[in-house]
Parts: sequence; C-alpha cells; structure tokens
Amino acid sequence: MTILILNGPNLNLTGRREPEVYGLRTFEELLNTLRRLFPKVEFVYFQSNIEGELIDKLHEYGFSAQGIILNAGAYTHTSIAIGDAVKAIETPVVEVHLSNVFAREEFRHHSFISPNARAYLCGFGLYGYILAAESLIKRFQLPEITV
Amino acid sequence: MTILILNGPNLNLTGRREPEVYGLRTFEELLNTLRRLFPKVEFVYFQSNIEGELIDKLHEYGFSAQGIILNAGAYTHTSIAIGDAVKAIETPVVEVHLSNVFAREEFRHHSFISPNARAYLCGFGLYGYILAAESLIKRFQLPEITV
Amino acid sequence: MTILILNGPNLNLTGRREPEVYGLRTFEELLNTLRRLFPKVEFVYFQSNIEGELIDKLHEYGFSAQGIILNAGAYTHTSIAIGDAVKAIETPVVEVHLSNVFAREEFRHHSFISPNARAYLCGFGLYGYILAAESLIKRFQLPEITV
Amino acid sequence: MTILILNGPNLNLTGRREPEVYGLRTFEELLNTLRRLFPKVEFVYFQSNIEGELIDKLHEYGFSAQGIILNAGAYTHTSIAIGDAVKAIETPVVEVHLSNVFAREEFRHHSFISPNARAYLCGFGLYGYILAAESLIKRFQLPEITV
Amino acid sequence: MTILILNGPNLNLTGRREPEVYGLRTFEELLNTLRRLFPKVEFVYFQSNIEGELIDKLHEYGFSAQGIILNAGAYTHTSIAIGDAVKAIETPVVEVHLSNVFAREEFRHHSFISPNARAYLCGFGLYGYILAAESLIKRFQLPEITV
Amino acid sequence: MTILILNGPNLNLTGRREPEVYGLRTFEELLNTLRRLFPKVEFVYFQSNIEGELIDKLHEYGFSAQGIILNAGAYTHTSIAIGDAVKAIETPVVEVHLSNVFAREEFRHHSFISPNARAYLCGFGLYGYILAAESLIKRFQLPEITV
Amino acid sequence: MTILILNGPNLNLTGRREPEVYGLRTFEELLNTLRRLFPKVEFVYFQSNIEGELIDKLHEYGFSAQGIILNAGAYTHTSIAIGDAVKAIETPVVEVHLSNVFAREEFRHHSFISPNARAYLCGFGLYGYILAAESLIKRFQLPEITV
Amino acid sequence: MTILILNGPNLNLTGRREPEVYGLRTFEELLNTLRRLFPKVEFVYFQSNIEGELIDKLHEYGFSAQGIILNAGAYTHTSIAIGDAVKAIETPVVEVHLSNVFAREEFRHHSFISPNARAYLCGFGLYGYILAAESLIKRFQLPEITV
Amino acid sequence: MTILILNGPNLNLTGRREPEVYGLRTFEELLNTLRRLFPKVEFVYFQSNIEGELIDKLHEYGFSAQGIILNAGAYTHTSIAIGDAVKAIETPVVEVHLSNVFAREEFRHHSFISPNARAYLCGFGLYGYILAAESLIKRFQLPEITV
Amino acid sequence: MTILILNGPNLNLTGRREPEVYGLRTFEELLNTLRRLFPKVEFVYFQSNIEGELIDKLHEYGFSAQGIILNAGAYTHTSIAIGDAVKAIETPVVEVHLSNVFAREEFRHHSFISPNARAYLCGFGLYGYILAAESLIKRFQLPEITV
Amino acid sequence: MTILILNGPNLNLTGRREPEVYGLRTFEELLNTLRRLFPKVEFVYFQSNIEGELIDKLHEYGFSAQGIILNAGAYTHTSIAIGDAVKAIETPVVEVHLSNVFAREEFRHHSFISPNARAYLCGFGLYGYILAAESLIKRFQLPEITV
Amino acid sequence: MTILILNGPNLNLTGRREPEVYGLRTFEELLNTLRRLFPKVEFVYFQSNIEGELIDKLHEYGFSAQGIILNAGAYTHTSIAIGDAVKAIETPVVEVHLSNVFAREEFRHHSFISPNARAYLCGFGLYGYILAAESLIKRFQLPEITV
Repeated sequence: MTILILNGPNLNLTGRREPEVYGLRTFEELLNTLRRLFPKVEFVYFQSNIEGELIDKLHEYGFSAQGIILNAGAYTHTSIAIGDAVKAIETPVVEVHLSNVFAREEFRHHSFISPNARAYLCGFGLYGYILAAESLIKRFQLPEITV
Repeated sequence: MTILILNGPNLNLTGRREPEVYGLRTFEELLNTLRRLFPKVEFVYFQSNIEGELIDKLHEYGFSAQGIILNAGAYTHTSIAIGDAVKAIETPVVEVHLSNVFAREEFRHHSFISPNARAYLCGFGLYGYILAAESLIKRFQLPEITV
Repeated sequence: MTILILNGPNLNLTGRREPEVYGLRTFEELLNTLRRLFPKVEFVYFQSNIEGELIDKLHEYGFSAQGIILNAGAYTHTSIAIGDAVKAIETPVVEVHLSNVFAREEFRHHSFISPNARAYLCGFGLYGYILAAESLIKRFQLPEITV
Repeated sequence: MTILILNGPNLNLTGRREPEVYGLRTFEELLNTLRRLFPKVEFVYFQSNIEGELIDKLHEYGFSAQGIILNAGAYTHTSIAIGDAVKAIETPVVEVHLSNVFAREEFRHHSFISPNARAYLCGFGLYGYILAAESLIKRFQLPEITV
Repeated sequence: MTILILNGPNLNLTGRREPEVYGLRTFEELLNTLRRLFPKVEFVYFQSNIEGELIDKLHEYGFSAQGIILNAGAYTHTSIAIGDAVKAIETPVVEVHLSNVFAREEFRHHSFISPNARAYLCGFGLYGYILAAESLIKRFQLPEITV
Repeated sequence: MTILILNGPNLNLTGRREPEVYGLRTFEELLNTLRRLFPKVEFVYFQSNIEGELIDKLHEYGFSAQGIILNAGAYTHTSIAIGDAVKAIETPVVEVHLSNVFAREEFRHHSFISPNARAYLCGFGLYGYILAAESLIKRFQLPEITV
Repeated sequence: MTILILNGPNLNLTGRREPEVYGLRTFEELLNTLRRLFPKVEFVYFQSNIEGELIDKLHEYGFSAQGIILNAGAYTHTSIAIGDAVKAIETPVVEVHLSNVFAREEFRHHSFISPNARAYLCGFGLYGYILAAESLIKRFQLPEITV
Repeated sequence: MTILILNGPNLNLTGRREPEVYGLRTFEELLNTLRRLFPKVEFVYFQSNIEGELIDKLHEYGFSAQGIILNAGAYTHTSIAIGDAVKAIETPVVEVHLSNVFAREEFRHHSFISPNARAYLCGFGLYGYILAAESLIKRFQLPEITV
Repeated sequence: MTILILNGPNLNLTGRREPEVYGLRTFEELLNTLRRLFPKVEFVYFQSNIEGELIDKLHEYGFSAQGIILNAGAYTHTSIAIGDAVKAIETPVVEVHLSNVFAREEFRHHSFISPNARAYLCGFGLYGYILAAESLIKRFQLPEITV
Repeated sequence: MTILILNGPNLNLTGRREPEVYGLRTFEELLNTLRRLFPKVEFVYFQSNIEGELIDKLHEYGFSAQGIILNAGAYTHTSIAIGDAVKAIETPVVEVHLSNVFAREEFRHHSFISPNARAYLCGFGLYGYILAAESLIKRFQLPEITV
Repeated sequence: MTILILNGPNLNLTGRREPEVYGLRTFEELLNTLRRLFPKVEFVYFQSNIEGELIDKLHEYGFSAQGIILNAGAYTHTSIAIGDAVKAIETPVVEVHLSNVFAREEFRHHSFISPNARAYLCGFGLYGYILAAESLIKRFQLPEITV
Repeated sequence: MTILILNGPNLNLTGRREPEVYGLRTFEELLNTLRRLFPKVEFVYFQSNIEGELIDKLHEYGFSAQGIILNAGAYTHTSIAIGDAVKAIETPVVEVHLSNVFAREEFRHHSFISPNARAYLCGFGLYGYILAAESLIKRFQLPEITV
C-alpha cells in the first residue's frame, strides 16, 4: 500500500518559518513517526514550490497509490489547475493544512481543491497528517470492534 | 476525562435523512465505538435543534471538560452566537461535519465557528468524530514512539 | 388525512401587529374556515417563536402527515436549519407568506426554505392558507371535470 | 367579469419543452378546466414572445378587466418595463410560474414584476392558474361560511 | 413604571468572558445601581441564549412596559425575527452594546434591530445601561431647568 | 475640566432644517442646559462646514481637553481624515448623532469615525449630547452609591 | 430640419399613469408647443412598447435627421441593444427622462444609453423635451449676442 | 429674481484644463451671455475648491434665491454633505455637468446630489447652464402659447 | 439539410456601423460564399431587432433544421428568454460573434445563451460563420482521413 | 509556415480524464489529422503543467511562428502572466477550449487570455483545433470563390 | 528649479502621532536634509488639513514648478477632486506615503491620485521624500556614468 | 553586501515588449549602472517565468542577503505563494514595478506581495531599481549631513 504525501510552496521551511503559526517540528520527524506507526505502508514524500510539479506528481501517483495527503500551501487558494488534477485522478485525496486557515486572512478561507477532495482537515498541525493517513488506511470506516 | 459531543439541528435524523449525503449509520453506533476505543474517557452526548440550547451546553461544559466535538449543523453557517460561545469558553473545540461541505452549496462553505475552533475537519462521515476524539485525547501532539 | 399548519416568529401577533401589512383577522378564524371547508381533513396548528421548535415539529409530522403549510416568518430569510429540515422530511411543504414579501425590504426576498418546498405563495393574506390547503388536498392536479 | 391570462416567452411550447420542468399538459386543457369551473367568468388568453406585446395587452385590459394572471416567463427576471406596466394599470395582477423558480438558477429568483403584483405563486404547475383565478374571483377574502 | 432589561446570548458570562472586551463587573451590580438610582422604577431583568425566548419577552412586555433596554448580543446581527418583534410592539426600545462594536469584526457592524429601535448606544460598558434607562425615564427630552 | 462639542456640516441649520428628522430645538438651548447641569465644566462649542477645520479643532483640543463630543454630520460617512484625527489624539471622543442613522439611508450606516471613538450613540436627539457629556464626566464608570 | 422624438414603453400612458411622478399633461400638448415654438423644424413623434421597434426607428432616422430626443423608458436600464443602436448611428441623440430618476429606485440610476448619447437631462418633466430640442437646434453652442 | 451659479473644485481652470473634455470657453463668457439673455435676473457666481464653502453658499442663498445652478465638480461623487445641504434648503437646485459624465469613469456615474436636486443635466457644455437658467426662470412649465 | 443563420439587433447595419469593430463586408457576401462552399446545404437567413421574433424563429426551425448559427447581438447579454429558447429546442446551436467580445466592455463578457449552446466562437469576423457552418455539417467530428 | 499548438495543465490526460467532458480521442490523433489536412504547415506541439514553461514557449515562437493555438487549461482563468505574454508577442493567438466552458462552473467563465487573443472558440472538442488552424492559415478571411 | 512638497491632513502631527506607524522625525528635519542635499533646488513646503487648499496649491504650482511631491494623507483614498487637480496640471507629481499603506486597512489600498501621478512610492518613511525629490531632479532617467 | 534583484514573468522581454509601457532600455544596462554606482555591493540578478523558481530564490537569499528588490511581474497580482515567501524570510524586500500600475487595468492594482514587503514603488521605470537599491543600502534612513 502506497500513500503519497504532497506538500506545496514554502512548506520546505516548516520548523523555521513563523513557528507560532506552523510549529517547530519538521516533516522528517513526521515521516519517521508515520513509518513507525504504519510499518506496512509505503510513504512517498514530495515537496515543490512549483505548481506544475505538484500536478505532475498527482498524475504520477493518482492512478496507482491508495491515498494522497495533499497540502498545497498557498496554491490551495489560487490553483484551479491542481483542483482539476485532483478531480481527474482516481486515488482519494485528503486535504490537510497545518494551521487553522479559517482563523487567518479571508483569502485563505477558499480552496479550489476541497470540492474535489475526499475529506478535509486543518488546524491539527503535523498531527493532522497522521489523522489523514489513518483515515486513508481505515478507508473512512467506523472500526468493527468485537469483544 | 470528559469529552462533550454536541450535535446541532437535523442531526437527530442521521441514518434516516438523505443517506447518500449523511450515511446510514447512527450516532448510537458511533458512541458505542468511541466508548470501546477509549474506555477511560467519559463521552457526553447532546443533540438539540435549538440554537440557544447548544450555547447553554457549551457554557455548561466549556470550563470543565477536556474537549468538545461540535457539529453545529446548519447553525454553523448562520450563528455568530455559537461562534461567540466557542470563543468565550476555555475547553478546546474541534469542529466536525459529516459531509464534505465544500462540495455542496456555497452558503455551506462559511463557518462562524471555525475561526474560534481549535481545529476543523469534514468529509470523513461518522469516522471524523473518532479522529476528533483522538486528537483531543492526544492533545494534538505527534506521538513519541520509542523502540 | 392530516395537514400541519406551522407558523413562525411574531405570527402569534397577527390581527394585532401592523394590520396594514398583516390584516386584522386571526388564525383562529382561519382554522374555523378551513375545518368547515374541508371537514374530512385534520388540521393541526402550531406556532412558535423558537426556531428549533419549528424544526422539531417538521420532524414530528414530516414522515406521516399528508401536507405541511409553513410560514416560517422572519426565519424564512435566515434559517438554513429549517430549510434543511424541509429537505430532510418526506411530506410535501407549501411555503406561505401573508404579505407580498417582494414589495418589502430586500432582505425579505430571499428564502432558505423555498428551494426545498414543493410550492410557494405570498401576498394572499390569510386566504393563501386556504389555497395552500386546497393544493395539498388536490395534490397539485388539474381537476377532472365531467359533464 | 373578465380575467386575462397573459403568458410570456417560450410558454407556447408548454407540454413539449422540458416536460420534467414544465409538465406535459397544455394551456388548452387549462382553459377548458377554468371555463367549466367558473362558467360566469370570461377568460381571455394571450401569449407572446415579444415583450412589448405583453405590455400592450396589460394596457388594453389593465383598466377594465377584473383580474390578470401573468406569467411573464423569462421576462420576469429582466423586464423593468413589464413591471412598470403592472404598476401603471389598475387591475390587480397575480404573478404565476409553473415551476418552483427558487429551486432553479439564481437569476430566476429575482422578479421585476412581483413588487408591483398583488400576489405571487409558483411551483403549482398549471394548477397554480386555478388558484390564481380563484383568488381573483374571491377577491382574496376568507369565505364567509354559514350553517 | 416598568423597564425591561433584556439580554441575549453569552451575556450570562459577563464578568467572566473576555474581560478586556466586556469588563469585569456583572449585571447584578448594574441592577443594584439602577434600583438605587431610580427607586421608583421597577426593573425587570431577563437573559436567554434562545432567540425565541427573547421574542416571547418582547411580546410580553412590549405593550405594557414604559421602556425596554435590549442587548441582543450576537443575535443583533442575524435575527430579523427579533427586529420584527421590536417593530411589532409599542414600547420604545433602546438598543445597547457593552463594547464598541464598530471597532470589532465587520459582521458586528450591522444590526437588524437598530432600524426599529428608538435609539442606539454602544461602547459605554455597563454604564450604557444607565444612560439608556435615564433616557427612557426622561423620555428623551432636554430637562427644563429653572432657577 | 474642558469638553469640546464639535459639530460638522449642516448642523448650523438645526432647528430649521427637516425638523421631523432633527427636531426643533437649537444648540444654544442645549449649551444653556449643559452649563446649568454641569457648572464646573467648561463647554467649548465649535461648528464648521469645512472638513479640515474640524480636524484642526480635534488637533487643538485633542491633547488637553478631558473629552470631545463629536457629531461630524455627513463627514462621518466619508471622512477617513477625521477618523484618523480621532485616532491620532489622546482625548476620548464620544460620537453622537441626532437621528437614528440606522433607520435612514444605507450610506449613513457606516462611520469612519466610530472604530476610533471611545463610544457611540444616536437617535436621542439633542438629549444625546447630555448623555455623552455625562459619560465623559463620569468616565464611563458605574457610580458608587452608598447609603 | 427634422427632429425625431422617440418614446419607449409605458410612455403612451403619460397623463394617465402615476400623475404624481409623470405629470398630467400629454405628449400631444408637448408636440403642439414644440411646433409653435420652432415652426421651421419638422418633429416626428414615435412611441412603441417594443424594444426592437425603437431600434428600427433609430436606424431609420439615425443617418438623416438632425437630432433625436430619446426617452427609452424602462428599456434605458436594460437595453444594451438600444445603446448599441445609438452608438451605431450618426445623428446626435439627447437622452431625456420626465422624472428625476436619481430620486427613484436604484435600478433606474444606470443607463446603457447615456454613454453613447450626446447629452442627458432628467427631472424637467415635459419641459425637458423643449430644452433638448433647443439644444439640438442651437447645436449646443452659447448664442452669440450682439447689441 | 436671483439665481446662484455655484461651481466646485477645478472648475476655475475651465478653458485651460483638458479642453477636449471641458471646452475652451470660460465662465466669464457664460455670465456675459446669461446677463444679456435674461437682463432682469441677477446672476451671482461663486466658485470654490473647498467643500465647506460650497455648503456655506448653499445655506446663504438657499432660503432666498429663486434658483441655484450647481456644478459641484468632483465633490458630486463623494460629498454626502453637499447633498444634505441641497436637501436642507428651500430653493430649487438644478444639477449641471459640462461633460457627459456617463461616458467617463465609473466613479463619476454616481451623484450624492441628484436625489435631492430638482432636475439634472449633463453633456451640454457651458450651454447647459443656459438651459438650467431657463428652466428655473420658466419654473419647469411648458410655455402657454397663444395665437 | 437546412441551417438557419439567425442575427440579432443592429447586425443589419454590418458593413456600415463601426467598421473598425465589425468589418466592411456584408452578410450578403457571406451568404454567397456559404452557398458556393456548401451547395448541398440550404441556408436560411433571418435578422431582426425584435427579441421575440428571434425566439419565434428558434421555435420554427429548432425541431427540424440540422443546425442553427446564432448571433443574438446585444441580446446575448440580456436575454434569458432567448437562452431558454435555445435550451427548449432540439437543433444544435453554435453561438457566434463577429468581434472578440472579451476585448470589449465588461457587460459583453457574459452570455445567457452560451450555457445552452453546443459551442461558441468569437473574434473571427464573418469568417466565424463559415467555421460554425463547417462544424455543424461535420457534426463536430475529426474528419476520417484515408490515404 | 509554422503553427504552435500549446496545451496547459491536465491536458496530457485527455482521452483518459472525465471523458464525458473532454472526449475519448487524443492529441496524437488530432496531430495526425492536422498534418494530413494541411501538409505544408509545420505543427509544433507542446504541453506542460508548468505555467512558466508555457510562457517560455510563447516567447520562443511568438515572434517567428505564423500562428499559435493556445489552450491554457485551468491557467486560462488565473494566469495574468500568460495573458501578458500573449499581449507581448506578435504572432496571432487563437484561444481554444475542448468543452463549452460557459456550461460549467462560474470560475471557468473568465479568461485572462481572451482580451489579448485574436479569436476564441470553445465546445467543439478536438475539432476546435482544426477550426483554429484553418482560421490561422486562411488569415481570418472569407475565401474568394470564383466560378 | 522649484519643487513643491504638499502634505495633507494630520501630517502636521508627524513625529507626535502614532510613532510606530509614522516615525519620530519631523518634516523640518526632512527639509533641512533636502536643502543640504540639493542646494540648487528651491523646496516649497505646504501642509493643510483642508482638501480645497491642497487643490489651490496644486493649481498655483502645477503650471510652473518642476516637480510636486504629494502626500495627500487620508484624502488620497477619498478625494476625486485632488486626483482631478493632479490630472489637470502640467507639473509631474510623485505620490508618497510614509507607511506601507498596503499593510494597513483595506480602505487605504485605493488611491484616486495614483492613476494621474507620474510615479508612486510608500513605506520608506521620510526617506521616501528624498527618493521622490531625486527622481524628479534626475527626470526619472538612469544616470549616464562615464569612467 | 549582497542585493538580489529578482524579476518575474515576461520581464525578460523588457526593451522589446510594449516599449511605450516598459521603456526601451534593458536590465543589462541597469546592472551596469548599479555596479558602477555602488561598487562595494554585490548585485545578483535572476529572472524566471516560473513562479516556484522565484520562491526558490527568495528562500535561497532570504536569510543571508542584505536586501531583495522584487518585481514579480504579473505574479504580483495572483501569487499568494510568493507573498508568503516574502513573509517567511528575513531579508527586507522592496517591491518594484516599471510602470505606474495604478494607471492600468483594475486587476493590476492589487498585490499579494506588498503587505509583506518593506516598501513599494512603481512608475519610475528602470530608475526605480536604483531608488530601491539606494534605500536598502541607506537602510531607509535620512542621511546625517554634517558641515
């Protein structure tokens, strides 16, 4: 099982940029945690500041991976093209943001991606990626719990 | 540890109303699952179609519970009063919606609650309440994993 | 056959409040007229100033009554929650307003209920409730007339 | 007593055009029904696709007929001129639409006619013309019912 | 002489909630002050988080009391229904807000109540209720001062 | 103790202009009343139709007077410059309007001054200046009342 | 010299329709006056409720007449087509309205014709047509006055 | 009989500024013409770049002159204060603009003055002042013409 | 095979009106060219300045012709009625404009017709009608080309 | 003669992505057809998901090729930069879209490219590229046809 | 060579008003610096809080000075009249603001002056006036530098 | 000391593209001038049409250079991502545009970069880069001038 984690512009600075907004921990730490929590899942990580490279990656994994966790950063709010790519592919996409974007500037409240995503979460910091991964692995189902 | 699950208007019909949007399972099933998954947590469940009763409950639990999972239903989009209540209390609130509201009518894209919530998620169905509970219990932290 | 007449805020003052807008006759007179005109139909009347109680009533009758006549008063223009309730139930709803709302303030021109209602009428005064009842009883069909 | 039924653009196709929206029955059937139901009333029927011809008819009947039932079709949403004509005449006008326009495109929600009409109804199909005629004949009054 | 003081949602938390916005003193202190300042006036105090209960109270006192001081809290900005109730009653209403709402979020700048109120004030804290009471008792007149 | 009363355009016509809106009494009467009510306070009165002269006066008194009562008339709705002046000075400003501006044209509902004012009132007629003066003298505090 | 006077919808009712807005005198009286005042000018009068007929007339006279006085009535605010016709022709057009349209509904403030007209006037009643005629005859020039 | 001609900002440059828009002739020429055409009328001319001075002049002449011709220049589009002054006075005001403002920038299409003016004209150049004077002298009446 | 070419207002002036926008050649030339290029196709040409006559023609040919080329001129931007007619008929419609409307005024960028048209083109001048005809004759298919 | 065909984001998926919108045939088929239809023309094909690479190509060919067929995909609606590039170059550009964008989401109705393009077409599927090529080769002229 | 430095409302308080926004140094210091840096240039300084006096100064110097540095303060955002004056004169104007207005309130982002100014700068504090002076003296040309 | 000059899309055509807007001189000339004027400063020049490459460069130099001069071209108006990068880095950024963008299309008036930039200038042509460099070198301070 493969899950692509796809990060957009400026997220390469996480841990260094505006830590009061984005926190101090890094995506390396996150990946280590994810791989330990879900050892059977292959996590592919890709970050780019170039809108078109994010689209390329969605095309590359969007017909074969089991899930995509997408944080398109600021392109979320301006990129119809990434939104179209999410719609064009078959793999379910969970949209993630580190901060609670609704507590920030008005122009961050709208996303061209979310209407085409399977689900959406924000404000959980790096922890949100774990929730997203979990939901993709559990296929959005209530667990059957037997005694 | 107490977590309040607070549901707004029409959510009492879940499992019966527009199942293609809201699913077929019910909040009773969810509560059973939550209580089995997290046996040490007390889950309080309250649903009302009356805006002011939701505010009353936020006041009642908002200074003592460890977390609140709030799905204010349609009041999400119209109630400044509930948004103010979330701001006025101390307990962290995770805002949850069953469906991906961003794939629905324009007027469902805006929330008066989210700027004051700790975090936000939608589109995960009933499973979203489990993610929300988990994040409140883990206090939004990456788990420390030792070998 | 049961028809619910459901009135929203301030309609308890009809006959007393701004008579040049809402008229001088009362809902009691209307009910008497309706019961005489359609003696085989059970008319249930409910008025509340509380938004959530209107929703409760829609839930209560919305799966068993044959028709609902809904005048949600000022909640018409602000309540997504009542609109959702109308959508969630099975009984057909006819939306009614006493005055011609389109000749009044701009904010009264929009209704969150009407997209989910079966039909809509306004400006007929109390007489509009009779037209609404008639349409529900006749099931919106041209009468077959034989010689 | 004379009642003018005035239909605007594309309504000559009723029964043929988008039957899932406008129904399968025709205005001829409606007129037959009306004339049988109200044999003492003279019903004049006029349809035109030309905005100005509708205005001409409003002028012709607007100072002598006892009622006008107006379905201006798409001109409803764009014609200030027809709205002005309705205001300029003396005969009361009931505005009618076959479909529930509020469940359709945004641009169909606004009417330049309704602020000047006596009353408004939509979503009742052809049956709405009967309700409109009834209200004009009954002069919008609750019937006096004696034992 | 009776004056109703009517407070809306979240105002039961005054003295506890965001003290930098709403201050540290409580409505109990205010009532004590008012009763000492104007011993001949009966002050009735009512607070509710439920929109419809505020409307009920306006109806109850709105035809007999000499004045109403209304702080509808967040419902100020969303409730056409309360605005209609203020218009429907006969007692003059003075609208009051603790904070200077114009220095806060855009959505707090609009009030559905103020067009129907007799007068409006904000930003005076609890002291504003005294000014409002004074104006109702003095009937908005310049005092006649004789030597 | 000095309080500046600063009136903007057209207020020199008060008592003569649209008396049904602005009343029949004049600012001379108001000043007499104020001086008798608060004999220890020096009231300075200034009126101008010139925006910049109002700014000059705010600069002149804004660092020495104990309070300013400002009715900027129509400049309220258009003058960012006066709003900036109110922000730039140190003396607290109470914004006053004779009529209930919220019951008038839409363009009178917005004020560039109010976000920078200490408090705001309207609709009390000339009596509003007395309330404003009182609040400045009492420093917006509930009076301590001893037996 | 030929001047076309072209009137749009509902202006055939002038003298009869809303006399407090449009006055009591008729276009016949106006034409008599014009012909006496300017006996050398041929005045052609045409009124139609049909938008396209107004365009036809503009085409017919727009390359040969010396001036056109156009009151397109309600089409002023909705007809890009008439505006285009005014732009397409060569004869100068003076736009005229009987009432002061700026003191009426917002939607009457915009004209698709005026950007292409030579000049514009409103609020002078029938007298405005005389001013318009005069300006066309004098070719918009200050008269040379010699002693 | 006295008529005030009141010109606003930048109109002192007429004849010099953007002649393709405002023409080459000056207000001195206009005044000479007016005085020769209407020798019994006293024409008072005043120009100022200061908004408040225009208001002062409206107050000074607005209760005694028989007519005011007002070209408030750019203040037309921004000054609620001048609009209020026009409303407050008794003398009828004709609003005049040299150029066809509707063929220019969007922000020049709105006037705060016109709703309160008696009549409005633009695009006639200096000749428009003559038309305005004529209408004030003739009191907006069709001339009685006898043989 | 029949193709209707349907032209709206002012297009009768083509070749004469604003040649820098619409070109110098006429529809007669175009028809000659079309008939020579496609001798087996019957081309019917109709132009009217009357909106309703365009609708009449759409009804007349819309159930029998193989294609319609529609340039509704300025009605494109204002006529919901023509848009509805295009939707109501069965013949595929290609919308055509001579000029590149997107390089012109904002109000020409929106079309009520295009959502219901089969395809859309503009900016090709008269040549665009040939492209439209070609596409209708070829039924929008890539030609099969064999060696 | 060289014609550049330039395709933007997600168009590399054509034939695979949402075939009900974009069709089943591919650009390879199109190119084969074009080269057979116009054997004397060199067709250069370039597709990229990266906005800046599209700009680079416009610069590269925009001063030497005889025509450019540009389908910028979703960048059409967001890229001022591509619009500027189209304006900066000398080669005429025909803007093409596969689907009828006007029948889709509102945000697809606006194009930053079209004001600078020579002509525009949409809704013809792949066939539209042939029409575009034809128009560039014929230089937008009606063919001269001799007998 | 003469350069006019023209400052608008509240700039007389610079050095005293909100120093975190506008800095602590004064225009006197700036003038001293300018005169030492450019001893051959005559710098004229004028500040007024009165809009019309700024216009007067633009007229006075706008046909003779070699440059004008204009900081119209808050009038920047509201004064079409000053913008018109800048357009009417011949001297090039450089618009200057002390603070970075784009990092402040929305209503400060728009300037009626800048479309008519030669160039624009903000956010450089008092140093911006030196840059503006330099550019006017160098006539906006790259310096020729010889070895 | 290092200063990065960062140019966005289409600026590689400067000197060639629309010279009436952007001028005839090139960035090579500018760099030569800068290096001669400030021989101690290292100027790094980078231009790209790819949004993400501009972000990469901001990251690369944004923690070590002493200043960045950024002209993001058309990305200025659409790129939240570049604006975020400017905010995330530590080096002060001066935003520069060659033309006076406020005299051009409306969509060029808004910048996502300027709220995060240190200062802003436009309309100075290439000379503006010299002013920007100077301000970065002088650290935005009035020079101390001693005799």
